[in-house]
Formats: sequence, structure tokens, C-alpha cells
Amino acid sequence: MYPSKQRQLVLRQRPTGLPTEQDIELAEGDVKPPQPGDVVIKNLYLSLDPAQRDWMNDAVSYLPPIAIGEAIRSTTLGQVVASESDALAVGDFVIGLATNAWEEYSTTPAEQLEKVDNSEFPLHYHLTILSGAMGLTPYFGMLKLGLPAPGKTVLMSAAAGGVGSIAGQIAKLHGCRVVGIAGADEKCQFICDELGFDDAINYKAVDDLTAAIAEKCPEGIDIYYDNVGGETLDAALLNLAQGARVVFCGAISTYNADGPVPGPFNYWQVLAKGASVHGQMNLKYADEYPAAIEQLKAWVRSGELKFAEHIVEGIENTVDAYRMLFTGGNKGKLIVKIADPD
Amino acid sequence: MYPSKQRQLVLRQRPTGLPTEQDIELAEGDVKPPQPGDVVIKNLYLSLDPAQRDWMNDAVSYLPPIAIGEAIRSTTLGQVVASESDALAVGDFVIGLATNAWEEYSTTPAEQLEKVDNSEFPLHYHLTILSGAMGLTPYFGMLKLGLPAPGKTVLMSAAAGGVGSIAGQIAKLHGCRVVGIAGADEKCQFICDELGFDDAINYKAVDDLTAAIAEKCPEGIDIYYDNVGGETLDAALLNLAQGARVVFCGAISTYNADGPVPGPFNYWQVLAKGASVHGQMNLKYADEYPAAIEQLKAWVRSGELKFAEHIVEGIENTVDAYRMLFTGGNKGKLIVKIADPD
Repeated sequence: MYPSKQRQLVLRQRPTGLPTEQDIELAEGDVKPPQPGDVVIKNLYLSLDPAQRDWMNDAVSYLPPIAIGEAIRSTTLGQVVASESDALAVGDFVIGLATNAWEEYSTTPAEQLEKVDNSEFPLHYHLTILSGAMGLTPYFGMLKLGLPAPGKTVLMSAAAGGVGSIAGQIAKLHGCRVVGIAGADEKCQFICDELGFDDAINYKAVDDLTAAIAEKCPEGIDIYYDNVGGETLDAALLNLAQGARVVFCGAISTYNADGPVPGPFNYWQVLAKGASVHGQMNLKYADEYPAAIEQLKAWVRSGELKFAEHIVEGIENTVDAYRMLFTGGNKGKLIVKIADPD
Repeated sequence: MYPSKQRQLVLRQRPTGLPTEQDIELAEGDVKPPQPGDVVIKNLYLSLDPAQRDWMNDAVSYLPPIAIGEAIRSTTLGQVVASESDALAVGDFVIGLATNAWEEYSTTPAEQLEKVDNSEFPLHYHLTILSGAMGLTPYFGMLKLGLPAPGKTVLMSAAAGGVGSIAGQIAKLHGCRVVGIAGADEKCQFICDELGFDDAINYKAVDDLTAAIAEKCPEGIDIYYDNVGGETLDAALLNLAQGARVVFCGAISTYNADGPVPGPFNYWQVLAKGASVHGQMNLKYADEYPAAIEQLKAWVRSGELKFAEHIVEGIENTVDAYRMLFTGGNKGKLIVKIADPD
């Protein structure tokens, strides 16, 4: 059972800089009736991911821009409340990777959703560490593109964030020395003391990030995991070891820029160091999602993988919360709880 | 036997823009006496390569900058005229990859040189197609980094140049469809009619290079071989197919720039297309040089690999000739003949 009307966060205009309530409005909309093969999902948790900021622009990316007047595309965790598919039943918990939206009810083809077995872990773990941006992104980014191995030096950007904190721990689990970059002493302490990183740099407390990286990575960086782009990427490029691999997972420092953003000024270092840059696209590994999730569960179960969640309550607080991603206000994976399960 | 004095092209100041005779002076210098293990080489041919422009800058690259007052570092082909090594004898022909200089006599450790067997091919082939920048660079760049395979679409920048013309033909030999970019109709005709490229774009004759590439590569580019950087790279990035590979071999459009050059404005496409960028460093494959040269010889022998050489005469014309690399004046690999063999 579902209502005919719902609350949605609708894109009214393309943001310049940080999204505001003028750009994204909480409005009343229809719940779309299911077609054959669809289910209606009551969303319980919304995922807040940097990539969404890119989808708000009118730009060529791996998914089309969100159209003006549409709800903000999102990964959500929810419960099936009506089903026109044999694959899912009312009451099932499901996650949809970028298939749903910031709204109370999403109507989605069942084949695009994954059923969640919530018997072992708290429900929201399935939206944070066990799936989506916080789980699968660092898993595939580090293991398929970074190729961690004992003795390698890893530099992790946005190391206290959802992706960086997990990618760094996965590198540690594979024998690497891992140095994290974060924007506060307290975050640096968190990644070293609680997550087991070897060292950390508070980029806001250093004058010369290139020199600070050189000091912490005296033999150069073998794997640079890039979540941020911009000046941090440029500083990392000047410290690459021969044959280094750059995992290009995101560029959060540039998402709110006004106008075209140039690539790194030190792009030449990719040639000078015989290095490589690998753009991350999880969809390539869709066949391996179940195995990846099993591995993540095993690491969470054993306590080898630690993580932080930042849970905001109420759909009306979503845009406010979203801005925290870019101002550094959150610690750990940011999600919004908008309803309880039936 | 060798003289005590010689003519050398000496770096007097770091060029801004195209190198001039004020930057690089033809001067008299000493021939360096050989130490144990060294040979003295009478240089017969000098190689003129875009990478040398980068070494003239005071910048971090894969080799240190050329010091002010030193002769311009170069790959040369020459003949041993004095030997303090058991490995090489007077009369032997040798090639040194970036070990010698634009000068009449180079004194170099024998272990850094390769002996040339000139029994089958004209001597200068060993400096052009069978070695160094024109032979090994496209060979390793295409085969180790581009990974050509039947059905793939290759876009080749600077397609009529020394590297591009060979890299494109190697892709053709591996079943690819190859589209070349060049700066004159006559060059486009050359690569299609004589080298067997499938199609060509005269970038000077199109208003919108991005659209021109889209028209010639309607299913996207699988392999972009980048010799030029700049606007051509940006146009190529907007046309990448999912999972595309960019071979980053050079960036000739930027070498004469005044001040820092940003990376590509469309760098984001590397992520959006799950693509990768691979900086080329031939030294990684040093163990495979002999096998590569044998393969190149076989292709030249069978006529499967065609190539053009542009041979200028006289050491005094070297700097003039060098500027042609950047103005598009040469067709094929540019070398300067400065002496005849003994």
C-alpha cells in the first residue's frame, strides 16, 4: 500500500557552487504507479554522495544529467510496498544503486534492485559499508585499479571520508603502508588511531602540501587514490614513484566550480613517471558485486574493517546535510533516515 | 683517432617558446677523453626529438634538465673511433638512446650503447625506424599500453609524424580501424594512401575538432594515442568509448608554452568513461629492445611497415631543423647527418 502523493527533493535549477534550497526544493509529487516488472519502494534511507553533485550539472558524465523538475537521482535503501514482479515481494528490503531518488517512494524495475538480507547486520549497514559508494567503490577501486601489494606506499585523499576510510583499510589489509590526507587534526587522529593508517597529513595545517607528502612518502607514492582532484592531485602527482597507479575515483574539490575546470597542472608527471591513471566505473564489475559484498561482510564481522556513519534524520534536512559533504562537516558515510520499516 | 676539439650545440639559456640560436649556440668544445669502459664515438647522425625540448626546461621530468653550458642531450648514431672497453671496437657502429649529444664526438660508457649490425639496412634506418623514438616508442606505446585488437577504433594524433605514422601502422597490423589527425591535406593523403590508415582529419581545416572526431569515430575511440596534448587531447577525451585507453606518449603542443600548462579540461572523462591514461616510459622494456628491433626489421623487410625520413645535412643546420618539429615542416622522422663513416 502506498499513498498517491509524496514528498520529493526536486531539481529546480542547476546549482552554481554549493546546492541551495532554491536549487533543490522539497515539493509534493505523485507516486508513480508500478508497471509490470516494477515495484514501489518506501525509501527508508537516502544516500548522499559527491557524484550526485555532478549529475546536477548539465555535463557529459557516466549518467545523464538530472533533468530540471525531476527528483535528485540517488542510491536508496527501502522496503517494497507494492510489487508487479515475481522477483520481489511486499516487505522485502531492497537497495537500488543510483536507480531511485531523494523521495519518499520510488517506483523502479525489480531487475535493477538488489534484495537485502538484513538478518545479520543493522539495516543501514547495507546502504553504507556493505554496498554502494562506501563499500563497493573503495573495494573495486583499490583492488581492481590500485592493485595493492605488500611494501607499496598508498596515499589516500579524503581519508576520513566514506570512500577514503575504507579504501585505506583495504590497502592495509593487503600489506601496504598507507598515508592519509584529511582536513582536521581530529580526523587525522581518527584514521591513524582507530582505522590503523600508518600516517596522516592535515592539509589545512601545512603550507606546502607537496613537501608534506614528500616527507611522509620519501620513496614516492605507488598508489594514489584520488577522491578530490585539484591542488591535492597536483601535489600527489609531483610525488609519484616510477610506475605509480592513480585511481581516479572522484574530484570533489571541483564539483562546485563555476565554469570549466582544467585537469591537473602536473599531468605531465604521468608520462615522466611512466605512471597510469584509471577512471573508476563500478558498473564494469556488476557480476562481482555479490562476492564483493560477502568479502565486505566478512571484514566487518571480524572487525578488520571499521567505519563511521553519519546519519541525519528527516527528508527536510537532506539539502542541508548534502552541503556538509563539501564543507567537511561529516565524518564517515552520510545518509538520511526518512522513515522506519513497516 | 679523434681530435681534441669539436663543434657542439650548447645550451646557453633556457628557451621560451621555440628554441633559437641565442638559446643553443654552435660552439667549440673539448672532446672528452675516454675513461676505462668508455668509447669515443664520431657521431654520424643526430636525432631530433620533441622530448629534447622538455629537457631544455628547468622542470621535473624522467631525465634531469640539460644544464646550461652543456651540449643538447640526444640519441645519436655514430662510429667508435677510440675504445677503452672490450665490448666495442674501433669501427663499430653504435646507437645511444639519449646517452649522447648534438656534437661531433661523444664519449660514453660502452654499456650504455647498442652495437648496430648494418649489413642489411641503410645505416640511418637504425636511428629512425629500427630504434629510438621512431621505432621503439610506437612499438612499445601501442603494444604495451594501447593493446590493439581486431575491431578496435584507434585515433592517432600527429599521425604523419615519426611516432604517429608507425604507431598507426602497428595498430593496423593488429586489426584495428585507425583514424589519423594531421595538419595538412597532403599529410592526410599520405597516411591514408601510402600508410593504409582508414581515415584522416586535417585539424587545421575543421572548425570543431570534437565534432569531426565524432563523425569519423561514431562508436567512440577505444585507443587514443596522444603525441600532442592540448586541444586535440581535449577533443579526443570527449569521444572516448567506455573503457578506452589513452597512451600518453607526448604533448608537443605544450612544450614551447610560457608558464605552467594545465592538464586537459576534459580530464573528468577519464572517470566518466571508466578509461585509463598510460604514461609511456620505454626504459621499462629495455630487456625487450632486441626482440622489438627484430620485429621492426621483419615488418620493414616485408614492406608491411612504411616510413618517411627527413634528413637535413650539416650540424650547423640543427637548430633550424629542430624548429620544424613544432611548426609542422617535416614529414617523417627528422635527423641531421653530420659526417660520413670512416
